[in-house]
Order: sequence, then C-alpha cells, then structure tokens
Amino acid sequence: MSKREQEIIAAAAAIFKEKGYQAATTRDIAAAVGIQQATLYYYVKSKEELLYLVVREPVDRLYMQVEAIMKTSLPARVKIEQGIGAHLAAFDDNYPHMLVFVQELHNVVQTLRDRLRGFPRRYQSLWEDILRQGVMAGELRSDLDITATALMILGMCNWMFRWYQKGGRLDAQTLAKQYAETILDGLTARPAS
Amino acid sequence: MSKREQEIIAAAAAIFKEKGYQAATTRDIAAAVGIQQATLYYYVKSKEELLYLVVREPVDRLYMQVEAIMKTSLPARVKIEQGIGAHLAAFDDNYPHMLVFVQELHNVVQTLRDRLRGFPRRYQSLWEDILRQGVMAGELRSDLDITATALMILGMCNWMFRWYQKGGRLDAQTLAKQYAETILDGLTARPAS
Repeated sequence: MSKREQEIIAAAAAIFKEKGYQAATTRDIAAAVGIQQATLYYYVKSKEELLYLVVREPVDRLYMQVEAIMKTSLPARVKIEQGIGAHLAAFDDNYPHMLVFVQELHNVVQTLRDRLRGFPRRYQSLWEDILRQGVMAGELRSDLDITATALMILGMCNWMFRWYQKGGRLDAQTLAKQYAETILDGLTARPAS
Repeated sequence: MSKREQEIIAAAAAIFKEKGYQAATTRDIAAAVGIQQATLYYYVKSKEELLYLVVREPVDRLYMQVEAIMKTSLPARVKIEQGIGAHLAAFDDNYPHMLVFVQELHNVVQTLRDRLRGFPRRYQSLWEDILRQGVMAGELRSDLDITATALMILGMCNWMFRWYQKGGRLDAQTLAKQYAETILDGLTARPAS
C-alpha cells in the first residue's frame, strides 16, 4: 500500500469518527489529505470501500488474537483477562479505526457483511466459547446466561468508543486490568484473607 | 399531546432506530403515519425537534429514578442493583425511544445539549456518586477507578441498544439481575459456603 493510500485511509478514519459515516463525504476526506476528490477516486472506488479499508485490518487482527487465546489451555480467568486486554488494546493501537468500527457498526454490518465474513457475530461466538469452557471447567459460575454475559463484556469494552481518547488519563492497559478484575471478582469489598 | 402527535413521535422513534437519525427524513416519518410531509410540519417544526420529543421523556424519567436511588440510604449493593434495573427497564418500557437515544448519542449531544441540560454527563455523575458512597462505606473495593467503573456499568447497560429486541429470549429484568450480580460478585465460581 502506497504512502498516499495510507494517508487517505487515516484521513477517512478521522473523518468517519468526527462526522459519522453517513454525513462524511469523499470530498471531506480528499480535502483532509490535500488532494482533489477526483484524485481520491484514483485510489479508492467509493466511500464504502474506504469504510472497509479503515476497519478490515484491526478487526481481523483482534479476531485472530482472541481466537488464539480461546484455543489455549489457559484457565478461563486468564483467557478473560487476555481477551479484554486484546480488545481494549485494539482501540488504542488502532485509534481511531476501531472506534469507527463500533460507532458505525450498523453501517458496517449492512454494507460490509460479506466482506467481513460476519465479524461481529463470529467474535461474539468466540467470547461465548471462552465463557462456556470456563463454566465446564468449574471455574466460572454456571447460573449465568452465556450469551448475556458475552454481550455484557463486549458492551463494557465497546463502549470505549464513546469516550476513549488516546493519551487520556486512563490508558487501555490500566482499564483492561480493572475491567477484568471487576468482571471476574466483582465490585464488592472482601475481607482481607 | 394529541393522538396524532403521539403517532408522529412513535413513528419517528421507529424510523430513527431503523435508518439512523442522519439518513431518516421527515418524509419517511410522515409516510409511516400516513400523512403529507406538510401536515407533519403543522405538528413539529423540524427533524431535530422530533429527536428531542423522542428522547426527552424517557431520559428525564431515568435520570430522576436513578437520582432518587442515589439519595436513599440503602446499601451500595442495592443501589447498584436498582440502578441497573431502572436503566435496563428504561430500554424495555420506552422501546425503541431509549435505543434511539443511545444509538444517536453523538447527534443528541450535538443538537440537544442545552435542552437536555447535559444529560449524559450528569447521569454518569450520578453513577459515580453511587460508587463513591459505596467505597466510603467500605462496601465496595477502593482500588478501582470510580470514573472507569461508572463508564463500564453504563457501557454494559447501553450496549443493549445494539441487540435488544422487546419480547426476545431475555427480558430486561432477568438481564438486570444477571448484570448486577456479575458486576457485584464477579463471574468466578465460589465454593459453596
């Protein structure tokens, strides 16, 4: 991928995040790169193509990371910690591409479904697998609905797209540690043992 | 409010949810009610006004409910359970109005900031107050960041807007109970005591 293409994708990510996918135009994106709209169409064929280019790599990478975690024989606790870590790190490492992905999930799912091979649903299934393994091994509570719990974890992680700012007070690693501890051990204070 | 106005607001909520606020038009909304676009403008002055009418009541009600919970002298545990219950019930009772609110938060905050008197921020503060009270009382762990934890709870609750369907397999009350238990006690299996 040429330097110019990389610039275009970075500008598209920033403008999709700022204006939203629907309101953003290829004219805005061309202007941000300092090129004519016609020149932009030399590199990419549509706004839809740009959305795909913005989200594809970070989304594929996150899926593969969590799939690898799921397939290990680590305790469920460690899998959950590592999975939350990978998820939040994806927001940080691919800022603002992953934020665009979550913010525009509705558009992504409608326009890119086939090309992302059902990503959101497949990713949720990975998390359900991790939880199910943990319940089967007796490590996790068996009285909780697996799907609801997976969606709860995805929700608390994905909500970052509303407020996360790279370089802010709380970094992704600190957040991941706190989120994993809360989800595994709860907020309730326990007597020192 | 006349029956016709109620119909218009209900149609607006359904269409904002389906198409997104940016893509939705007052023509779509008028068509859904079976009236002319010009007639719709007799009742409401703009699409922005419709967004406000869709979200105002459920948002105000949820704020007041959680504020009332925060001001009681109940244990933090009960406040968190009741607060999550009120939050998820708001999605269910005001379907799909609250889903529109969360889905369109970016647009809501930009266009309705003054009229909702800084709702999302004020609501987050209520949750921070509940958590802070719990830490001060020794009921909740003191090693977790209050803001990060509040955003985590809001995230797991708000994420419902992506997948919740009224009348689906999991009702809001069951979900609220499971979410509160997980957040308070964790997913880790504990030996029977």
